[in-house]
Amino acid sequence: MVMELDLGTARPLLEAWLREDIGHGDVTTGAVIPAGMLGRARIEAREPAVVAGLPLAGLCFEIVASTPLSWEAKVTDGSEVEAGEVLAVVEGPLGAILTAERTALNLLGHLSGIATLTRRFVDAIAGSSTKIVDTRKTTPGLRIFEKYAVRTGGGANHRFGLDDAILIKDNHIHAAGGITQAVTRARDNAPHVAKIEIEVENSGQLVEAIEAGADIVMLDNMSPQEVRDAVDATAGRAMLEVSGGVDLGNVAAYAAVGPDLISVGALTHSAPRTDVALEVER
Amino acid sequence: MVMELDLGTARPLLEAWLREDIGHGDVTTGAVIPAGMLGRARIEAREPAVVAGLPLAGLCFEIVASTPLSWEAKVTDGSEVEAGEVLAVVEGPLGAILTAERTALNLLGHLSGIATLTRRFVDAIAGSSTKIVDTRKTTPGLRIFEKYAVRTGGGANHRFGLDDAILIKDNHIHAAGGITQAVTRARDNAPHVAKIEIEVENSGQLVEAIEAGADIVMLDNMSPQEVRDAVDATAGRAMLEVSGGVDLGNVAAYAAVGPDLISVGALTHSAPRTDVALEVER
Amino acid sequence: MVMELDLGTARPLLEAWLREDIGHGDVTTGAVIPAGMLGRARIEAREPAVVAGLPLAGLCFEIVASTPLSWEAKVTDGSEVEAGEVLAVVEGPLGAILTAERTALNLLGHLSGIATLTRRFVDAIAGSSTKIVDTRKTTPGLRIFEKYAVRTGGGANHRFGLDDAILIKDNHIHAAGGITQAVTRARDNAPHVAKIEIEVENSGQLVEAIEAGADIVMLDNMSPQEVRDAVDATAGRAMLEVSGGVDLGNVAAYAAVGPDLISVGALTHSAPRTDVALEVER
Amino acid sequence: MVMELDLGTARPLLEAWLREDIGHGDVTTGAVIPAGMLGRARIEAREPAVVAGLPLAGLCFEIVASTPLSWEAKVTDGSEVEAGEVLAVVEGPLGAILTAERTALNLLGHLSGIATLTRRFVDAIAGSSTKIVDTRKTTPGLRIFEKYAVRTGGGANHRFGLDDAILIKDNHIHAAGGITQAVTRARDNAPHVAKIEIEVENSGQLVEAIEAGADIVMLDNMSPQEVRDAVDATAGRAMLEVSGGVDLGNVAAYAAVGPDLISVGALTHSAPRTDVALEVER
Amino acid sequence: MVMELDLGTARPLLEAWLREDIGHGDVTTGAVIPAGMLGRARIEAREPAVVAGLPLAGLCFEIVASTPLSWEAKVTDGSEVEAGEVLAVVEGPLGAILTAERTALNLLGHLSGIATLTRRFVDAIAGSSTKIVDTRKTTPGLRIFEKYAVRTGGGANHRFGLDDAILIKDNHIHAAGGITQAVTRARDNAPHVAKIEIEVENSGQLVEAIEAGADIVMLDNMSPQEVRDAVDATAGRAMLEVSGGVDLGNVAAYAAVGPDLISVGALTHSAPRTDVALEVER
Amino acid sequence: MVMELDLGTARPLLEAWLREDIGHGDVTTGAVIPAGMLGRARIEAREPAVVAGLPLAGLCFEIVASTPLSWEAKVTDGSEVEAGEVLAVVEGPLGAILTAERTALNLLGHLSGIATLTRRFVDAIAGSSTKIVDTRKTTPGLRIFEKYAVRTGGGANHRFGLDDAILIKDNHIHAAGGITQAVTRARDNAPHVAKIEIEVENSGQLVEAIEAGADIVMLDNMSPQEVRDAVDATAGRAMLEVSGGVDLGNVAAYAAVGPDLISVGALTHSAPRTDVALEVER
Repeated sequence: MVMELDLGTARPLLEAWLREDIGHGDVTTGAVIPAGMLGRARIEAREPAVVAGLPLAGLCFEIVASTPLSWEAKVTDGSEVEAGEVLAVVEGPLGAILTAERTALNLLGHLSGIATLTRRFVDAIAGSSTKIVDTRKTTPGLRIFEKYAVRTGGGANHRFGLDDAILIKDNHIHAAGGITQAVTRARDNAPHVAKIEIEVENSGQLVEAIEAGADIVMLDNMSPQEVRDAVDATAGRAMLEVSGGVDLGNVAAYAAVGPDLISVGALTHSAPRTDVALEVER
Repeated sequence: MVMELDLGTARPLLEAWLREDIGHGDVTTGAVIPAGMLGRARIEAREPAVVAGLPLAGLCFEIVASTPLSWEAKVTDGSEVEAGEVLAVVEGPLGAILTAERTALNLLGHLSGIATLTRRFVDAIAGSSTKIVDTRKTTPGLRIFEKYAVRTGGGANHRFGLDDAILIKDNHIHAAGGITQAVTRARDNAPHVAKIEIEVENSGQLVEAIEAGADIVMLDNMSPQEVRDAVDATAGRAMLEVSGGVDLGNVAAYAAVGPDLISVGALTHSAPRTDVALEVER
Repeated sequence: MVMELDLGTARPLLEAWLREDIGHGDVTTGAVIPAGMLGRARIEAREPAVVAGLPLAGLCFEIVASTPLSWEAKVTDGSEVEAGEVLAVVEGPLGAILTAERTALNLLGHLSGIATLTRRFVDAIAGSSTKIVDTRKTTPGLRIFEKYAVRTGGGANHRFGLDDAILIKDNHIHAAGGITQAVTRARDNAPHVAKIEIEVENSGQLVEAIEAGADIVMLDNMSPQEVRDAVDATAGRAMLEVSGGVDLGNVAAYAAVGPDLISVGALTHSAPRTDVALEVER
Repeated sequence: MVMELDLGTARPLLEAWLREDIGHGDVTTGAVIPAGMLGRARIEAREPAVVAGLPLAGLCFEIVASTPLSWEAKVTDGSEVEAGEVLAVVEGPLGAILTAERTALNLLGHLSGIATLTRRFVDAIAGSSTKIVDTRKTTPGLRIFEKYAVRTGGGANHRFGLDDAILIKDNHIHAAGGITQAVTRARDNAPHVAKIEIEVENSGQLVEAIEAGADIVMLDNMSPQEVRDAVDATAGRAMLEVSGGVDLGNVAAYAAVGPDLISVGALTHSAPRTDVALEVER
Repeated sequence: MVMELDLGTARPLLEAWLREDIGHGDVTTGAVIPAGMLGRARIEAREPAVVAGLPLAGLCFEIVASTPLSWEAKVTDGSEVEAGEVLAVVEGPLGAILTAERTALNLLGHLSGIATLTRRFVDAIAGSSTKIVDTRKTTPGLRIFEKYAVRTGGGANHRFGLDDAILIKDNHIHAAGGITQAVTRARDNAPHVAKIEIEVENSGQLVEAIEAGADIVMLDNMSPQEVRDAVDATAGRAMLEVSGGVDLGNVAAYAAVGPDLISVGALTHSAPRTDVALEVER
Repeated sequence: MVMELDLGTARPLLEAWLREDIGHGDVTTGAVIPAGMLGRARIEAREPAVVAGLPLAGLCFEIVASTPLSWEAKVTDGSEVEAGEVLAVVEGPLGAILTAERTALNLLGHLSGIATLTRRFVDAIAGSSTKIVDTRKTTPGLRIFEKYAVRTGGGANHRFGLDDAILIKDNHIHAAGGITQAVTRARDNAPHVAKIEIEVENSGQLVEAIEAGADIVMLDNMSPQEVRDAVDATAGRAMLEVSGGVDLGNVAAYAAVGPDLISVGALTHSAPRTDVALEVER
């Protein structure tokens, strides 16, 4: 999906996040930095990374500055950068730069961490036609940004929330009385525009799901061999998504047997933060 | 600090986070779960952890449910739990339980991860008088919760934001023209209620900071031996905070030489999520 | 779809709408109605209707009242009522009842109008397997309520917004360079959970859309005969939606030829308001 | 009244309404429209109308676009236009134009419908000194816009809400113990800046109201002949407002007998939407 | 006017004001007060006063407390109290009581100050039929509360804002080209429900205003003798409002000559705060 | 402290305050002022004052104006001005100027009143090293502005709220079981960055507080002689703050005996409003 980052939507969130850090004012900067002092600073990566969130970081500085400030990105989101590489240069009122620094870096480091981990998964299955997708295991309040970071890293997005797709999980199946009943209820009651995805745990359930008319089947915690069998049994009648137990060590083995999708919760819930820093030039 | 979690403040944030996931409605649950169906589910830890955020998880279910729902916590925040241990039981409208599940677990897993990592650091220096403190490297929008999780894990909080303490870092020092000048400006201009903390990189700066009247000195990226020397040189004239390069492997070595505080950014920016799950009883 | 009306989401909207009418206070009621006076009033339909929004009306009175007030619905949303039929009885502080009256009736009359018109369309095609669905031609700010009213009247909902389904219209097709290109781009770039719907204007385009892999085809402004031909040509390979030019006079003719869906913008943009009134008992 | 449309107030409402439609993103446009593609589109009327809300429509496009976009209105609000007439031309990023289209048209069509219906009532009584005024029977959340549309159509506004005028209706009269008592209470208790309007049902009540000192009397559901008698009996001692049962067929007969005001709820609660469309130029 | 204080509207404002003071938490109370400690405290007046805002103060404590808390008002708003008199007793979690104390007292002291000053003006003209009214010279954000305090003190409210009454001042007159033109424009263009008030500076303008049809005339900065002449010249054809230069020393002289209204900006912009305090019982 | 006024934070508050006054529109200006009329007006002081809030006043006019408007400040915040002195000139749409006038002046007069009173206290102790500081006795919702006005007048700010400093008052002491216990609890539980201030009522308590390790001691309602004794007894081991019973008549006597700080609640809760006015040029 090629949707761009919507800075209009982001702005009020950034304002709230800056307010979370700044409160009634940055007392250190207010007391120590001479009024009107200008400065120029570089945003740098301190480790190799795929950059995500650079426009958000720039917007942080612009929001805080009350006098003119320039922001020049040196790379674009999605770029692979080296340790020490300069990502952007910000120039303007030094006080504002130091006040906005932490929020900007917290966001940039978090999103770049997600993009970087996603890229590793994508690279690990290079050459296959399988897509790496995210999950709803995101940080509360950050979903649109974290899913943007996944796209930036080369992954694709699974559903954004409970309202834009049908995904029938084991608890739904049990409550409905079985796979066939659950799929039938979904078809009868859900919006006609939504595909029906259902989670299965074995090949018997897979067959029942396909025959009930599921559009997508999520294979829960299966081995690569089990996935291979599922691909064969499905024969293109439904999309297949591998879910559970996937890591960088085994993702290639899963991709090799031909599922359409591999979903990885860790992309958004366990990506290590990318170390980024701001250096004032002297 | 013994401030409790403020559920009144939390509620509108939880409502926004639930809205982020639910949007205009949970179409799967709406289509598949029979209207009025009741259920009972357990929240379980899937790995050993220190629990944090359980009241928030409970509030998620209460917010979503429009008919009576009971929430019974089996442990309290701060408890150490085993893999498989039941943290809480929720009983009521099954649809609401499934709709709120993901947001509740995302929050509980994230905060428990922070509390668990904090506890490990605290345990690693058991017996010392040094405090483990957090930093401002938190996830945007979640600071009050993440700092609560740090306290829950046994750590203490450093400043909450730029407005409640003075922390003079290298860029401030350079702009002010030196350590003495920076501390002097802070004393003259900052609120009299704030202690003055300043970051130093070597023993010469430490001495200058103390003589200028700093209340707290942050020792940036020093070795345990350097910290020992600093403790000796300071002789109680200021609080000392170790910052940078601390991990579970070396934290005990740092604590052993007697600093007042050790700050660890990883507590909030790199704590792995605790695996928690919801199991509907059948 | 069986999603219920979410009163939790509705409450802040109702509060804002009451504030729109009440401003800094109801000066007439404040000046004229004796303090503490109690009253009992009936909400009545003044014309035959399908009721929708009754819980919202009740919530209006509860929000305004600062002393105990009882609300008793005499019918449920979705009921067909006669002229003069009592829909609910509200009893409590008379001032609050009169202050909340207009907002409650404006909402109830608007939503009941939509449910009533929807029911007429649904009744007009009784016996067919075709579904009546709404569009995005809703009143700004009221979409979730208007779509609820459509469901209450027996219709089904099309997509809720631009984010929960793919609907490729003529302008998209032209920009992409043709139907095949547009469907291909959608398949490659859009979330895998979304079905792909595309608008066509003739049988040639229909064939191209199906062969390109569209899941749903919207037949734009076709006659019943043209729709019949399209149903035959499609032979179940895609869902078919009739759109444009449908009214109560011809909807049965369209349904008779077997499309899956008929969408009617007038359900939400031209439903006449149902006349409802509040009568204080004396 | 010549108050202009306040775009500053409108902006956050438009942003919320666009968000209602766009959610986390326009997935169709994101997937199908090539990035950076520019376009030029015309907003056209598809039936004769009085235009209202054109600046709001323009603002919708500006809000959505993140790169430069031009909006050129070809007519002003209040203009009478023919079917096919171009109302405005928008030029800029094609994706943004298509994303904002529906919200812009929903608003423009709704408000133009109100202005058009109002103009018909005003034209129907051309030559008289009677004013056509609206009521509080508006769509929740849209009152300031709908009342603007009434003014645009040539009507005048009755009170905006419960806080800016006194209007004593039958339920107030009954609670106060009679017309004289109600008017007296209003005079004693209400702000001195407010005129006192009271609703009456017959000539006896009219006389009592005038003698009690009412500034304006609303004649409820009277025939033109009854209104004529009321005008004679009043002899200029109060303003007279005709209310109830007025339509395009009889409004001239009412105006002919000389009331000051005729209020018409249908202006805002039953105006048919004006059909407007956006055509991308090719 | 007898409109009561609307606690529903007040609650979100109180929450915001408490948040202004509490921020991320009351660190003193959190650190020093033992968890779970209960307490009982009296709210007392430290000087004679007319009480206003007591329900708001009570609501402050309820909002902050997360465990049961009782609030018992000992007097009602509008009561005259002596120095040392107990206004209310609050009992519950001691930490919450101390945390809410300052915001509750700030509000109670501010509003009681306004009510007390208003009462003095009202008492100073006891026996006359003139009303003491307020102005729009209120504290930003507090208008509905300050106008409530004026009513509580026995005064009446002038208009609430620019939208609920016509008040033509000298700048308007000059722009319109004169008094007659200004009144005529107002009559032609303003809502028919609004009375027309105009400010005049001398008797010639007064006559012109009345003949132009003004409903109310504001006499700007006139002496009691000039007001007496104006009352005679007006002979009941319009209401007369004295404005400017009125204080407790001369208000009786103004009232003695018979104007309908005397407006006093100082009621809301210069009322000294009433000294109120919270005493924890030991 | 040299923190500047943050107009970014101020803007939404100003918008809300303007909305409080303007509501759905300025009906007088809308009716009386010819559309498109331009004007030029001076903001003047009508009494000697220290100006505070001028940028906020300017922003009010800019927010209301929908066509270009120029604002030229003639003095800066903090300037001492004479009666009649022009503070700023605003030029642009006359309607917008008159609509924004009252809110702009209410704010400017309120803040200038605070700055002016603060300056008088500061001037009264000129030559001493004591600082005049404010308290938390501010107007709800206006704290950041009122504290800015104190700084503008030459005072310093005490803590901003309950979250940025420790201040142990008599109720805390009693609950903790004594001064020593309270200070100890604060040291153990509160953030290490906060100084510990404690209120004492006599010299015995002062000694206990200092020995317990308090950083700042507030001397409650002591005479200048008692303060002198306290200064002597303290001998620089803690900061001393005089609180209670200070006015312009005795502040110099207090400052003469050498405390570090004198806090004055009246700065924010009893400063008389500065009389400021807007004059349209003719």
